[in-house]
Amino acid sequence: MPPKQTDNSHDTFTAAPSLDALVSMMSGDMALVNATILDRMNSEIPLIPQLAGHLIAAGGKRMRPLMTLAGAQLVRANQPKTGNISDAGNTSDASAGHEGGIKLATAVEFIHSATLLHDDVIDESNLRRGRDTANALWGNEASVLVGDFLFARSFELMVEAGSLAVLGRLSAAAANITEGEIKQMEIAGEPATPLDDYLAVIGGKTAILFAAAAAAGAEIAGGSPDDIAAMHSYGHSLGMAFQIMDDALDYTADADAMGKNAGDDFWDQKITMPVILAWQDGDDEERAFWQRTLGDGDFNLADQDADLAHAQAILTTHDAINRSLDAAEAYVQTAIEALAPYRNGPAGELADALASAAAFAAKRTS
Amino acid sequence: MPPKQTDNSHDTFTAAPSLDALVSMMSGDMALVNATILDRMNSEIPLIPQLAGHLIAAGGKRMRPLMTLAGAQLVRANQPKTGNISDAGNTSDASAGHEGGIKLATAVEFIHSATLLHDDVIDESNLRRGRDTANALWGNEASVLVGDFLFARSFELMVEAGSLAVLGRLSAAAANITEGEIKQMEIAGEPATPLDDYLAVIGGKTAILFAAAAAAGAEIAGGSPDDIAAMHSYGHSLGMAFQIMDDALDYTADADAMGKNAGDDFWDQKITMPVILAWQDGDDEERAFWQRTLGDGDFNLADQDADLAHAQAILTTHDAINRSLDAAEAYVQTAIEALAPYRNGPAGELADALASAAAFAAKRTS
Repeated sequence: MPPKQTDNSHDTFTAAPSLDALVSMMSGDMALVNATILDRMNSEIPLIPQLAGHLIAAGGKRMRPLMTLAGAQLVRANQPKTGNISDAGNTSDASAGHEGGIKLATAVEFIHSATLLHDDVIDESNLRRGRDTANALWGNEASVLVGDFLFARSFELMVEAGSLAVLGRLSAAAANITEGEIKQMEIAGEPATPLDDYLAVIGGKTAILFAAAAAAGAEIAGGSPDDIAAMHSYGHSLGMAFQIMDDALDYTADADAMGKNAGDDFWDQKITMPVILAWQDGDDEERAFWQRTLGDGDFNLADQDADLAHAQAILTTHDAINRSLDAAEAYVQTAIEALAPYRNGPAGELADALASAAAFAAKRTS
Repeated sequence: MPPKQTDNSHDTFTAAPSLDALVSMMSGDMALVNATILDRMNSEIPLIPQLAGHLIAAGGKRMRPLMTLAGAQLVRANQPKTGNISDAGNTSDASAGHEGGIKLATAVEFIHSATLLHDDVIDESNLRRGRDTANALWGNEASVLVGDFLFARSFELMVEAGSLAVLGRLSAAAANITEGEIKQMEIAGEPATPLDDYLAVIGGKTAILFAAAAAAGAEIAGGSPDDIAAMHSYGHSLGMAFQIMDDALDYTADADAMGKNAGDDFWDQKITMPVILAWQDGDDEERAFWQRTLGDGDFNLADQDADLAHAQAILTTHDAINRSLDAAEAYVQTAIEALAPYRNGPAGELADALASAAAFAAKRTS
């Protein structure tokens, strides 16, 4: 009989991909977040709630505020139970911390919404999640300004949450988001982009907000440095997986299931992981094709579908979609590993739900 | 012989319009602000310092950070001198407060710069202060994103300054700025706009940042609620005077001296004080003219100068430029009155310099 294994750090955790358990466990807090969103997007200027409401009513899974709520709840659930007497003494602190978490989750959603409004202006998009974009309905000016308003309002909410440390974390994240988006703009049309540059782009434009959102939740709930680092790592890895999967599926029929058209990134000359892998392994003829299309934007106007079909064929030759999906899956594993310290403790159920959410982020169209 | 007058609250203070004394008194701190601006607009993404540097190198009088520096200095200068022993005990606090003021002044300039970048995108402007705008050189995408970056970076600086109260003040101001700009967008093309709506627009888009900048300076320096309220009132009134004067001079030859073309607001169908006054006093024929031009944007393309000349003639008929300048002057008086508690005290020299600056803001082209 082998010795009883006490070190389980080498276990490979797996989780069924689903957001359901996490959404269900956070539903009470999320209702408070939704109420706070409605309350705080209000203004004496009627256009602001109209435009912001159009975007926010369009839905989305509220994954970023979920990160904050779950980060806070994980810390609270993992704390050793204390007696009733000290519980009573801590009630107002705990209540303030809980309210702070709701405000931070709302702030995180506002930062994300502001980014979407500005992205749609930049991309000149007319559709998001199958609906007209705000800039298509109200014009670019209104979208830029209401984005600025939501961004400013998010900082008001963070101030009310009362933690300078969390404010620093989220304002640094906000700066990093714009750095990632600017770098994305710079690598557009450059099919020879190194993979590290792509990873830096999505680390900024996507993963940092997931990371900061989850870490901010842990921090406002009084988590230890280890708690905060674990949640940061979890959110970062989930965000990386989320974006790599999104980019890979853009070249597949699954794009339709995401409310996008297959090839959107191709026509926009966006450089994503499948293309980078195919470029690295490509011969001169293939590279000439990528340079003409993604590089120079010189598409075959008489038969655009032929260009996209050829791109897809090259990606298949190099197994570039599957290799990208594997990279996303590796990030999911890293996200799940960050949860290891919690899975056998009092927060185990929530940790399992977070693991499933990470797997879901990378498989959300299946 | 009349009784000696001890209540001087009814004195009318006057001040020669000049920014020189204030700039000179704040030159040491402003050098630190300029160094902090250069340091903190840096990024691994080279485009960010390039684009931000283009805007910031274009100059401007740095009036908003001057407000913060002066608000802080006024409070420090007005504090009663204490003995060396307690001075020594307070050195590190005072030093931290001073450094915080420099960071806040930089943050205020970044908020202003972000607003300018987004305004140029919205207005599709190609020239600012006689130079190509950032959006003309680098495109709208870059201007939106670098504006977002500067806004995020401004909050990082505020976090470092360490005062949640100041953070709340400036983030509320940032939200109010966007509300003012959205309201300005809404009243564009509406010559029947009530004067109060115009005052609300400029109170948001311009005056609130001057007010919050000056009040933040007083607050970070440990000023009393009265100090903070006085600086808020001073900055607000100066900002109102500044914008009314700017709008009035847009219809005069003095516009050239401001690096603008006379009539810019007219062609943009912007509704400003002179037009509102002329509309209120106008007959049917005049109102029909305003409706055709500012209302419907139906300008006489064969002879645009004729339309502007006719607008100027109507404004002269109703003395609308001079009446606007009088309104600006009244705000200057209010700004100067807010300084009354300081003018005979240890901060008297700075208060006099601030009074001259307020007068200058409303007469800066003379």
